[in-house]
Amino acid sequence: LTLTREEAAALDRCDELAGFRDRFVLPEGLIYLDGNSLGPLPVATKARVGEVVEREWGQSLIRSWTDHGWIDLQFRIGEKIARLIGAAPGTTVVADSTSVNLYKLLAAALHRRPDRRVILTEAGNFPTDLYIAQGLAAHLQLGHEVREATNVLSTLDDTVGVLMLTHVNYRSGAMHDVAALTRAAHAAGALALWDLSHSVGAVPLQLEADGVDIAVGCGYKYLNGGPGAPAFLYIAKHMQNELRLPLTGWLGHAAPFAFESGYRPAPGIGRAVVGTPPVLSLAALEIGIDIALEAPMAAVRAKSLALAELFMTLMAEESAFTLLTPQAAPRRGSQVAFAHPQGYAIMQALIERGVIGDFRSPDVLRFGLAPLYVRFVDIWDAVATLRDVMRSAAWKQDRFQRRRSVT
Amino acid sequence: LTLTREEAAALDRCDELAGFRDRFVLPEGLIYLDGNSLGPLPVATKARVGEVVEREWGQSLIRSWTDHGWIDLQFRIGEKIARLIGAAPGTTVVADSTSVNLYKLLAAALHRRPDRRVILTEAGNFPTDLYIAQGLAAHLQLGHEVREATNVLSTLDDTVGVLMLTHVNYRSGAMHDVAALTRAAHAAGALALWDLSHSVGAVPLQLEADGVDIAVGCGYKYLNGGPGAPAFLYIAKHMQNELRLPLTGWLGHAAPFAFESGYRPAPGIGRAVVGTPPVLSLAALEIGIDIALEAPMAAVRAKSLALAELFMTLMAEESAFTLLTPQAAPRRGSQVAFAHPQGYAIMQALIERGVIGDFRSPDVLRFGLAPLYVRFVDIWDAVATLRDVMRSAAWKQDRFQRRRSVT
Repeated sequence: LTLTREEAAALDRCDELAGFRDRFVLPEGLIYLDGNSLGPLPVATKARVGEVVEREWGQSLIRSWTDHGWIDLQFRIGEKIARLIGAAPGTTVVADSTSVNLYKLLAAALHRRPDRRVILTEAGNFPTDLYIAQGLAAHLQLGHEVREATNVLSTLDDTVGVLMLTHVNYRSGAMHDVAALTRAAHAAGALALWDLSHSVGAVPLQLEADGVDIAVGCGYKYLNGGPGAPAFLYIAKHMQNELRLPLTGWLGHAAPFAFESGYRPAPGIGRAVVGTPPVLSLAALEIGIDIALEAPMAAVRAKSLALAELFMTLMAEESAFTLLTPQAAPRRGSQVAFAHPQGYAIMQALIERGVIGDFRSPDVLRFGLAPLYVRFVDIWDAVATLRDVMRSAAWKQDRFQRRRSVT
Repeated sequence: LTLTREEAAALDRCDELAGFRDRFVLPEGLIYLDGNSLGPLPVATKARVGEVVEREWGQSLIRSWTDHGWIDLQFRIGEKIARLIGAAPGTTVVADSTSVNLYKLLAAALHRRPDRRVILTEAGNFPTDLYIAQGLAAHLQLGHEVREATNVLSTLDDTVGVLMLTHVNYRSGAMHDVAALTRAAHAAGALALWDLSHSVGAVPLQLEADGVDIAVGCGYKYLNGGPGAPAFLYIAKHMQNELRLPLTGWLGHAAPFAFESGYRPAPGIGRAVVGTPPVLSLAALEIGIDIALEAPMAAVRAKSLALAELFMTLMAEESAFTLLTPQAAPRRGSQVAFAHPQGYAIMQALIERGVIGDFRSPDVLRFGLAPLYVRFVDIWDAVATLRDVMRSAAWKQDRFQRRRSVT
């Protein structure tokens, strides 16, 4: 390898974020490069969840909705996420899943552009984004079309009602320029809907400065909120009171406890919540976000880029792998991806050796680089393990071959 | 009182469900009659949630989706709920919130009745049911109308696409005849959508025998699944493959891990899930359901009715209170409700004395009677406390008066 393990270790010694690693449970002997799929357990989460279960639910029961602030939890955590994504107070709330939030905001955005019938997105966007748009278009029966473009800029025209993009691509790790694309959408008369699932917590975001209209994001990737953690959504202040959301549940009512028979949307971001929120999952999410807020984003970004550069440099000699991630730093999120025709088997062999990345059909090996707990030596060791797998042809063993049921 | 505390205690000694009380954490000195809003913590839940957090998430990380069956959790728990509601295997799944599930099923049902524009429901239905229907109708822009009737049977005509009802009314505790109303809906050419939130786990249900088309229900009331526990939904087998749900998320795809660009619904009930499920909240829910499955439903129903009869008998002398719950057993769910002009202050005074019921605007005192942990002496003590509050005029104290912010 073009750099020694000792040199990688030296980078760790200079890492100002090194101390954050102790905030997470990281099983001995494992190199975890899948935090872009499921972030690890923060050490503090166990006690917090236990407290919510035993003290709040167990002892205070129904009174916890007020006494322990459960009723405000979605908003309190939303305000913390707002700080992570460069959003103004009162613009961000935790609710439902990313998919459900996409539906809510996309439907509301289409309603704001009644004369336009195209939802423009990128070919290769995360499937749930595409599926939600397809399902909504079919459901509305108003002739909407989901257009998947390779170059969205050249396809933006006056038929486009909403430009819906994921900030960092889930496979390649390529990152869009939020400000430039939002400007282009606005210039074309469209609204911009951003999915921040693969960027929040790992790359800098400044939604307000970038003029973003609406956005959604995921809680269980770089925010380390736990499996299936609730998602969040953002609505720019100036749009909130004119936005008609399709999912008008009781908690989004202006006076939920008045039990009125007619729906009146809550003022501001409050209308974006729907049903009773999953308190246990919310409690876990808050711990992950609190940790993310402690880390200076500039340092997070610098380390993320450095980890990726190390990974790409060490992999440069592995000519059988095609780098899918853009090499230019501003075009990269916080993951690296390589294509290999035998990607599935190779990833299985890596996982068996304790290097946890993941595989995405048809041939992508994906490695998430979460700066709060991934070390430079982890990258060195991961690549060394990969080289060992390739040299020994370990991946050719029968047990690593793709089963038909895994597609 | 017309019955002594000792006589109530004698009823507890003969109660075949008495042993279930030990399965729940019930704080000393508290009489908890609000399990129809939030069920108490099962003793086993703490360890189970701890295991999922520490061992499954903490140690196995992303591998838990397969190794610990997270990916099947919504379906595994759904199958258990199916047994509670008299549904066939493969018809019930845990997903999202009750409100979101209502939206999904109501939208799909309207799509099956394209020539009909009326959603018929009951005046006084739970607000989120009304709000979701109103929001959906507005969103579709197809001229749908939400009709709230006092007598739905006389309002069922050939304009009605969906009859949407809550089985047990959240305020009065009045219970509908599922079979008769579903038959009436079908005879009128409409589909029947039932909200089981205030009945599941407390009253017998036989969805398949009753010919129910679609249904939703709540996990945190009589199922004791924890605050904001995920909800469930039911789709009759014969309708599943023809039902077009509007929220087409990646987990409802026929092959979610193929990451195809076009949505193809999963066969059967699988299409009704949307995004990644909240695993911690699901784990807690499963414990509550496991306990419910151990209790013979006939015994649960018999005790529920007996608890309510005792409550109503003891309250008969309290002429200032108007009974809102039907006295005929087949017309009752598992709660009793009384109106009193000073209901709010009276409930506050009761809560301060350790009797937890709840208040619903404008004047309703509501008491949930969960047969798995509520004792006959609890009813006796609750009514004795209420009499004491009334005799001493304790509720007139300033601190019990309604603040303007509570509406």
